[in-house]
Amino acid sequence: MCLAVMFLVDWITALITFLVIIALYLFVSYRNPDVNWGSSTQAQTYISALKTTLDLNTVEEHVKNFRPQLLVLTGSPGSRPPLLDFAQSITKNISLLACGHVMQGPQSQRVRNSLSRQAYSWLHRHKIRAFYSLVEGNSLEEGARNLFQLVGLGKLRPNTVLLGYKANWRKCDRQELKAYFNTLHEALDMYFGIAILRVPQGLDYSQIVEDEDTPVMMNGNDTSLARVVEEKPGQSAANQLTHDGADSEASSPPGSPQVERAAVVNEEAARDKQKHRLSIANLYRGAGGVELSKDVLNNITMFKRKQKKSTVDVWWLYDDGGLTLLVPYILTTRSQWAGCKLRVFALANRKDELDMEQRSMANLLSKFRIDYSDVIVIPDVAKKAAESSRMEFDQLIEDFKAKTDEEISKENEGILISEAELLGQREKTNRHVRLRELLLENSRNSSLVVMTLPMPRKSSVSAPLYMAWLETLTRDMPPFILIRGNQTSVLTFYS
Amino acid sequence: MCLAVMFLVDWITALITFLVIIALYLFVSYRNPDVNWGSSTQAQTYISALKTTLDLNTVEEHVKNFRPQLLVLTGSPGSRPPLLDFAQSITKNISLLACGHVMQGPQSQRVRNSLSRQAYSWLHRHKIRAFYSLVEGNSLEEGARNLFQLVGLGKLRPNTVLLGYKANWRKCDRQELKAYFNTLHEALDMYFGIAILRVPQGLDYSQIVEDEDTPVMMNGNDTSLARVVEEKPGQSAANQLTHDGADSEASSPPGSPQVERAAVVNEEAARDKQKHRLSIANLYRGAGGVELSKDVLNNITMFKRKQKKSTVDVWWLYDDGGLTLLVPYILTTRSQWAGCKLRVFALANRKDELDMEQRSMANLLSKFRIDYSDVIVIPDVAKKAAESSRMEFDQLIEDFKAKTDEEISKENEGILISEAELLGQREKTNRHVRLRELLLENSRNSSLVVMTLPMPRKSSVSAPLYMAWLETLTRDMPPFILIRGNQTSVLTFYS
Repeated sequence: MCLAVMFLVDWITALITFLVIIALYLFVSYRNPDVNWGSSTQAQTYISALKTTLDLNTVEEHVKNFRPQLLVLTGSPGSRPPLLDFAQSITKNISLLACGHVMQGPQSQRVRNSLSRQAYSWLHRHKIRAFYSLVEGNSLEEGARNLFQLVGLGKLRPNTVLLGYKANWRKCDRQELKAYFNTLHEALDMYFGIAILRVPQGLDYSQIVEDEDTPVMMNGNDTSLARVVEEKPGQSAANQLTHDGADSEASSPPGSPQVERAAVVNEEAARDKQKHRLSIANLYRGAGGVELSKDVLNNITMFKRKQKKSTVDVWWLYDDGGLTLLVPYILTTRSQWAGCKLRVFALANRKDELDMEQRSMANLLSKFRIDYSDVIVIPDVAKKAAESSRMEFDQLIEDFKAKTDEEISKENEGILISEAELLGQREKTNRHVRLRELLLENSRNSSLVVMTLPMPRKSSVSAPLYMAWLETLTRDMPPFILIRGNQTSVLTFYS
Repeated sequence: MCLAVMFLVDWITALITFLVIIALYLFVSYRNPDVNWGSSTQAQTYISALKTTLDLNTVEEHVKNFRPQLLVLTGSPGSRPPLLDFAQSITKNISLLACGHVMQGPQSQRVRNSLSRQAYSWLHRHKIRAFYSLVEGNSLEEGARNLFQLVGLGKLRPNTVLLGYKANWRKCDRQELKAYFNTLHEALDMYFGIAILRVPQGLDYSQIVEDEDTPVMMNGNDTSLARVVEEKPGQSAANQLTHDGADSEASSPPGSPQVERAAVVNEEAARDKQKHRLSIANLYRGAGGVELSKDVLNNITMFKRKQKKSTVDVWWLYDDGGLTLLVPYILTTRSQWAGCKLRVFALANRKDELDMEQRSMANLLSKFRIDYSDVIVIPDVAKKAAESSRMEFDQLIEDFKAKTDEEISKENEGILISEAELLGQREKTNRHVRLRELLLENSRNSSLVVMTLPMPRKSSVSAPLYMAWLETLTRDMPPFILIRGNQTSVLTFYS
């Protein structure tokens, strides 16, 4: 009988050994997807990707499974590294991240293939797990509309659009300004959430950084073409998205928030950083392969590093379903933002209800199980803004004011501000100017400001007035993100 | 010592039981993706779909892993069931299948969501594992261009476009004809393979079948809207794709190939079919929920059934990389086509080389390990076609001939045939008329004819002349598919 048992044990040992070998094989091939394990493994990867994505079609959506799936209007991924790093810290490989690129068309398939290979190679080198979608369009607006309709597969599709702030809106071509504004509408019309990121030094590095390395996965015969394409940034509508002469100089004046933050980080881990910077300096090179200055490198990689230990300030002004609250919450769970405390600002309707508002907000946050450090209820938002703030605002829109009503023809409709519009939006304008005063008072030294995006009502607000509001809120502030959910609840306290 | 062994055996038994339970759980949740296993499983499905699709980005493409990944221009999936069934028998869950729908826009997001839910519900009910992409466009051509650029995610993207044959090309609006023709160009410009399917009774059932069931996965408040959308077929550009008054009558005259095939099948398994038809009759219902006639049901489900035991004839006229050969080969490995033998037709350049051509073709096929039953080399394709055949062709283009050269203005360029064009394309026209004679001689009784698609050269051929060629090849024939690879090799005999 003992013999039988030993036989059994032998047999089981053999089985377990076999299982362990299989498991090891799977583990190794999982860790090294680059290693060429032959075509049957490749085919298996394909089939499993297809199968799981199809399976997903039958999974019902549930508010508890909501995750911000991002479509980021990056242009080619290499042109806006901080925007993509920021997006990556939201999705972090457990939610969809897609880079959208609108290109002035039509282009040949060779150019398209080359751009696509270049993009995936860039993403691979910078260890960002994302997809890349390239579309031709006569304008950013037209291309973006098609991206919004078609990017993704089944349920693996974006629900939130992340854009860079268009810092050059006052200087750029006015049709470009209008296209940017209309892109926001297209996104809202299709029930996308919207997020607009602004950082003090601008996001567009396409003029500074050269995409030097030849793509890894390409056949090697298209490099010269790729270079030609890269050197014509005018071809890319999305490239002009956040480009601004002054902003993209990217050499911050001393004392700007960015340099301060860099200093704090330097104190913390100077030596590690030295080693790290060498590798970063190799990843990003200027035109002709020259090394970039420390400041520029710091700015490019700002969201790759640990952030300054301060607060993430959420200004939750309207109920948009909760996206404005969810995104900063997700961020604070990431290691880069781990040192930051979440503060929530809300506006009081009446002065005598301050206390109640605060308690109900604190209560709500607890129910959402969102770990906040402070809830601050702000009174007096309807108060008239100071004279100096209002003058500042007037200067912003100076160039866009229509002299007479007749001047607003069909052609420049929506890119000039009429007297009637200014009057009609007087209260809202005051509100935004006033909000800036409150922001300066409360959030100037935070690591990140998150605020509900004002609604761009197409019929009543022109592009320049709307952009002036955004400019008022975000200028000379720490990294600032304006968010608007699509009114669908993304948070719940039902269990 | 025996005690220790028994302890070990106990422990191992426990371990194995545990593993079996896990395996069972995984198996059950794999078989029943509909069952709500709670949100963590749902989240896991999402993450695994995302992860595998991202992993696929780093898998290099290889000719041995080539598979036809199909984008099918179905309109809403329910409007062309045979086209989708045919596509499904090529991809069969191990290759991508995406339904493309071009809709006259702009539409509200509510309509779009409703259409999308309806489409996925239809696919679910008909057990077709596919994705659905909806895009707005002013024309089929414009929408298709955006579909070609954006459908798919990473490497899960189509490489071949499958369209229904536009049977009403002589009667439809001429701009519609041009848009169809231009859609082929767009696909070729973007290096897509092209396949055009024609069946005797037409593919478009949007006017006959009512999509009766309320979508399964929808929230239940949009049904009325969905119905409204469904009842406006004029809104869908792709709906007009293969619609033809005569063809979509769908009541075949007795003696047509379709009825013959139906008869053969009926003899084979009359009883099984009776039961089967009851469930099919429930799947497809006419307007107002009436039951459809047996003939119509037979036609709708023609590619779901076992095909008549005859031949699949491949006319490999030009080397297109091998897609024309690969698709029929794949088909013959499916159970529906299992009874069919593969015959390969090739054209001889010179009459005295017949024998050599045949041997070299047979040799090539053996190297590809494609199991063929016969290789037939056809001589004399350049011979002048019979007078009657040529008159038949002349009748086809009668309405499209430009009376004078002046008539061809900017406006109707490409939709009228000039004398010069007819003269320039005389040889090609003769070739196609001659091919029809050979097809009638050799392939009239086959189950499926596969032929290389003639190249639509934009500069030299107008839309009506090109369509007349296709009409000549495919009219009154068994199910006919014209295929053109993108010249990239999809077959290899290197190991």
